Amino acid sequence: MRILLVNPNITHSITETMVAEARRTASPGTEIVPATAAFGTLYVENRVEASIAAHAVLEAVAEHAGDCDAVIVCAFGDPGLLAARELLDVPVVGIAESAMLLAHTLGRRYSIVCMTSRLRTWYLECAQSYGLHTRLAAVRALDTPVDVTRARETLAEPLLALCERTIAEDDAEVVVLGGGPLAGIARDIADRIPVPTLDGVSCAVQMAESLVRLAPRPPRVGSHARPRPKPARGLSPALATAMRTTAL
Amino acid sequence: MRILLVNPNITHSITETMVAEARRTASPGTEIVPATAAFGTLYVENRVEASIAAHAVLEAVAEHAGDCDAVIVCAFGDPGLLAARELLDVPVVGIAESAMLLAHTLGRRYSIVCMTSRLRTWYLECAQSYGLHTRLAAVRALDTPVDVTRARETLAEPLLALCERTIAEDDAEVVVLGGGPLAGIARDIADRIPVPTLDGVSCAVQMAESLVRLAPRPPRVGSHARPRPKPARGLSPALATAMRTTAL
Amino acid sequence: MRILLVNPNITHSITETMVAEARRTASPGTEIVPATAAFGTLYVENRVEASIAAHAVLEAVAEHAGDCDAVIVCAFGDPGLLAARELLDVPVVGIAESAMLLAHTLGRRYSIVCMTSRLRTWYLECAQSYGLHTRLAAVRALDTPVDVTRARETLAEPLLALCERTIAEDDAEVVVLGGGPLAGIARDIADRIPVPTLDGVSCAVQMAESLVRLAPRPPRVGSHARPRPKPARGLSPALATAMRTTAL
Amino acid sequence: MRILLVNPNITHSITETMVAEARRTASPGTEIVPATAAFGTLYVENRVEASIAAHAVLEAVAEHAGDCDAVIVCAFGDPGLLAARELLDVPVVGIAESAMLLAHTLGRRYSIVCMTSRLRTWYLECAQSYGLHTRLAAVRALDTPVDVTRARETLAEPLLALCERTIAEDDAEVVVLGGGPLAGIARDIADRIPVPTLDGVSCAVQMAESLVRLAPRPPRVGSHARPRPKPARGLSPALATAMRTTAL
Amino acid sequence: MRILLVNPNITHSITETMVAEARRTASPGTEIVPATAAFGTLYVENRVEASIAAHAVLEAVAEHAGDCDAVIVCAFGDPGLLAARELLDVPVVGIAESAMLLAHTLGRRYSIVCMTSRLRTWYLECAQSYGLHTRLAAVRALDTPVDVTRARETLAEPLLALCERTIAEDDAEVVVLGGGPLAGIARDIADRIPVPTLDGVSCAVQMAESLVRLAPRPPRVGSHARPRPKPARGLSPALATAMRTTAL
Amino acid sequence: MRILLVNPNITHSITETMVAEARRTASPGTEIVPATAAFGTLYVENRVEASIAAHAVLEAVAEHAGDCDAVIVCAFGDPGLLAARELLDVPVVGIAESAMLLAHTLGRRYSIVCMTSRLRTWYLECAQSYGLHTRLAAVRALDTPVDVTRARETLAEPLLALCERTIAEDDAEVVVLGGGPLAGIARDIADRIPVPTLDGVSCAVQMAESLVRLAPRPPRVGSHARPRPKPARGLSPALATAMRTTAL
Repeated sequence: MRILLVNPNITHSITETMVAEARRTASPGTEIVPATAAFGTLYVENRVEASIAAHAVLEAVAEHAGDCDAVIVCAFGDPGLLAARELLDVPVVGIAESAMLLAHTLGRRYSIVCMTSRLRTWYLECAQSYGLHTRLAAVRALDTPVDVTRARETLAEPLLALCERTIAEDDAEVVVLGGGPLAGIARDIADRIPVPTLDGVSCAVQMAESLVRLAPRPPRVGSHARPRPKPARGLSPALATAMRTTAL
Repeated sequence: MRILLVNPNITHSITETMVAEARRTASPGTEIVPATAAFGTLYVENRVEASIAAHAVLEAVAEHAGDCDAVIVCAFGDPGLLAARELLDVPVVGIAESAMLLAHTLGRRYSIVCMTSRLRTWYLECAQSYGLHTRLAAVRALDTPVDVTRARETLAEPLLALCERTIAEDDAEVVVLGGGPLAGIARDIADRIPVPTLDGVSCAVQMAESLVRLAPRPPRVGSHARPRPKPARGLSPALATAMRTTAL
Repeated sequence: MRILLVNPNITHSITETMVAEARRTASPGTEIVPATAAFGTLYVENRVEASIAAHAVLEAVAEHAGDCDAVIVCAFGDPGLLAARELLDVPVVGIAESAMLLAHTLGRRYSIVCMTSRLRTWYLECAQSYGLHTRLAAVRALDTPVDVTRARETLAEPLLALCERTIAEDDAEVVVLGGGPLAGIARDIADRIPVPTLDGVSCAVQMAESLVRLAPRPPRVGSHARPRPKPARGLSPALATAMRTTAL
Repeated sequence: MRILLVNPNITHSITETMVAEARRTASPGTEIVPATAAFGTLYVENRVEASIAAHAVLEAVAEHAGDCDAVIVCAFGDPGLLAARELLDVPVVGIAESAMLLAHTLGRRYSIVCMTSRLRTWYLECAQSYGLHTRLAAVRALDTPVDVTRARETLAEPLLALCERTIAEDDAEVVVLGGGPLAGIARDIADRIPVPTLDGVSCAVQMAESLVRLAPRPPRVGSHARPRPKPARGLSPALATAMRTTAL
Repeated sequence: MRILLVNPNITHSITETMVAEARRTASPGTEIVPATAAFGTLYVENRVEASIAAHAVLEAVAEHAGDCDAVIVCAFGDPGLLAARELLDVPVVGIAESAMLLAHTLGRRYSIVCMTSRLRTWYLECAQSYGLHTRLAAVRALDTPVDVTRARETLAEPLLALCERTIAEDDAEVVVLGGGPLAGIARDIADRIPVPTLDGVSCAVQMAESLVRLAPRPPRVGSHARPRPKPARGLSPALATAMRTTAL
Repeated sequence: MRILLVNPNITHSITETMVAEARRTASPGTEIVPATAAFGTLYVENRVEASIAAHAVLEAVAEHAGDCDAVIVCAFGDPGLLAARELLDVPVVGIAESAMLLAHTLGRRYSIVCMTSRLRTWYLECAQSYGLHTRLAAVRALDTPVDVTRARETLAEPLLALCERTIAEDDAEVVVLGGGPLAGIARDIADRIPVPTLDGVSCAVQMAESLVRLAPRPPRVGSHARPRPKPARGLSPALATAMRTTAL
């Protein structure tokens, strides 16, 4: 099975970190195919950047998903996830959605800990948009400047402290480390956290493999069925083809 | 006062229709400045197209909002609205949000009638994302193919029938005609509908003018404060400048 | 355009304060017509007083709304607002509802700051009754005795402190100063608050003018259509006439 | 034990009907003391009439509750209920609230059947305002003109048909006959309805007696504690005394 | 009237404490018939124990409810309550549900105070499962080890402190002492609490008597109608008979 | 990996059907270990039977889960699922919860189709108890008597008709076949349904394998941590040991 892992930001070193974690979790025989956004920002943190990233994700899947069995949108917040599902016949999962869903099986309420207060807002809105906020205890953010490209070395301890706090104060029974750049940290600190701890990338790999094995048929009706062709302008050739647009 | 009216789709004739309706409603002294998306689709109907449109709206406001006092995102569904608010210090309103808010003052529950079932889903998700679904009675869609560029001539009667049905069956006490291309139709048929009927473009003009007059200060904290600069790649010069990015 | 501003409490000096603020905000050509409740209490703070005020508001609009284009119910909490809408064919707005609606366009969550803990409860119930609580971060109240007739001179600093607290602790991105007697204070302190700040009276003037310009037709069906005539007893002649009652 | 039964409308024959039903249900030793609104309408059906009735209920309890152990606000919709609780130290119950609460013990979802579509809206808003809508299946209304003073003779069969319909179509497992004037009808038709059927007046008598026996102390803090005295004007002497107002 | 009081745990001294409180509250002529779970744990605190207790409650009512007019499931959390309602034609009430319902008549929001953090979670889920969480301010638990068989002597003061805290910090206007073993404590400390305080056992007696007097007919349709007979194995003879099972 | 599949009803032929479907879906190297409830009913359909089944599931996992890596509670409705999670350190999944979670990744709203109206109610309550009802479009039930042991041969066509109906009328974009005895039918009819169709058993196998691979640590705090030991009576030796009870 081939799984396309799309990094919605433009930073190749973050792609590599996430791919490494994905490969560690993937079943034998699963190949992780990396793709990095062709345009956008160093990382994705707010609505402006997420809007741009959603477009970049669509471009990336139009370009690269052709021979893949599933796609992972690999930024917590899942920019472009639902749109990508419209575009493709193979399963598409996000690291935020996957972690939120699996968290439901491990405790009464889950918390997300993340790097910045802007990410916090995004993740709150993300959970609400999925209808998965009813079991969300809190989203907690670090309040210090972060270097996302060195997250694993520098943020493990501060994130651990946040985890402890959300367990004690927010009634969290599961903790999700929210953020693609945090890939691997959950494994580093899980033993020191008294409740189950989840990493988005690992969860997404599991969900992608599960869906490929279940092989649900693509929808032919409803809001995730392939959109009707439509005249368009200014899209990349790959995306225009995927959308089956005609020139205006 | 100058209000930038951004059409998130690429169709100039729809821009013109909407601008005409906006000018009819605007106060003396208000100038409506039109802008049409530089890339995207004939109209915007699903998540793929809305994702692309959101990016196009950000490009358009980065390019054109400079000397305007407010911005209208002029597609029902409001692609890019919340992101545009992060980018600008002037008020930004959407035609869906404006109509939904004003509907609250006119009856216990409101319905939206629209052109296609894909739009229907989008508007439902839009209302939920604003937290304005608690008074939403229903979104009703026509079930026949439509020519959006000839909406006013061809859709008035079918939309009127939908209005009557949602009043009778969904307990709607206000009706919103949902869709930028429908601009003007509400006025054409309002007399034949037994409850208040709203048009998104007119509502957005009122909300934009109201906010300019109230002159709330732009936020310096929270999720709508201007984002921090960040390295970026592949953005248009105008958007890169507006986002104050540095080259990666 | 003539807008009737009804003060639901019996205190003429508060009427004057609110009318002054309304006139400052109103468009050229808009006339603000004041009316003060004929019976009731010094100000309106709890369910007993709000119940009495609702009746007084109905009496006032029956008496004075005849040649007006819109009505403002000018106590935060909006006593009698929905009932008045049943009684009149012109738009009726409340200062709480108007501020809550406009707050939706300025940030993700809004808080209300107010004078007393009883007001706090009332405003919470008010937001819930409108279905506008999904974006309400908190209602915060002063905990010291207040002289409502000297609010502007004495309460600006304590209210400013409350605003800062709700931004820091409740995640508020917009602040509403809740209370008719607070008219004008928002303007006095807005520059010192890092998020947009709204004043109910100013918002209500904007909403009233917007609705007059949109000119939605009055409902002929639904829960805001004019009630059927009914035998009655003990009502004022003006209210009995407005209700088209017959003597029992 | 003495229970004051306040009819919020001005129709003595309806008071008598309700008192008769209350007496039939009351425990030995419970005395039902009737009071009829001094002003208002033939019956209470919409927001205008409910606002007036709320004031009339406060006047009535101020006048008559002095030597009673509990009060029943005896119109479905419970006008003035929460305000009356602020005013009195004895328990105050409403026939809508009582029936809704008891319905929770008898099935998964309950429906209310009632006389007119305006009542329907009121009851929906009533259930929501109590937070008791999560188990409300539907409110169903007759669609023909009714003579409320002859409800028992003329409405039993049409209401029975509504009950059957809401069980079949709305998943109702309990039915509440909503409307003071319907007192007694539930008993007449209960045997022909395949689920438990409740009458508001009987439920309110049980709830009032229960609360008297439990003898909870009146609140000294919170939104139902006695309001602070306040200058007032134009209130009846009894109400002014109960509110401990001073003359303005 | 005979009311079966079923203690879902196996501790006879707790049964006695609860029966004593029930008898003190019951009307003249009401007989309280005790039954104690035949299997299970010292007290019921978590999902494992509540699952076992639910089965034990069904066994107990199958065995003992035969000549009773109503049943009280007498552990806060109400294990087996809804199932028991399916099995019996007489009213079945729980002490949690009864207290939650009556709390609605006494204030805007209620809190539950209880003995342990595991009970706290259970009660939260209980309120949600009843749809009675919309007015639940908080569930607060002691954080020290407790001896449930000596609750009345040792826990009154710590629980009083919790009550004060939830009133001050959670906006509670009614307090419920949650836990069968706490029977009687509410009476001991109510005078020192500034809001109405409820005891589950007393509330359940009132609700049971009320329902017996109202005499609603048992449902013949819906999810609480008697289940269809079904082949079974390994049930006690009494329960098998009550379920009208056939041997597999 | 060894996964214990617990059938909460007593019917071995249903266990066999479900185990066959599980084995077909399981990864190479996964062993499915069957267990059938020692007491209970032919199948599980209502609250009485589900309460008994929950106890039986606890007995079964106490007896058989010792050397397994995960457990599947294999009746739709998941009796005893949350309790079993408290008892064990390995992941425990239910077929209802698993299907509901995976449904979130495949469409905007999902429907469940099932065999009887009592099952329908149970599944509704199940989705609500998980907080997974926000995306639940409807639960639809056959209205004819069913022979659960011959479901696959006799129910495929009627269930297909239900699927079509819920897609057309309830806006469902994913369909779940709800019921352990329906194992395999989803595969038989999926090609004829225009949206993705899920089978609970297959989904549960995927979720169980995913959780085993993620290897989250068991909680040491919170409501799913192992309960404290407690005196008990009348439990099976295996369950008493698992609960670490002491004899009373």
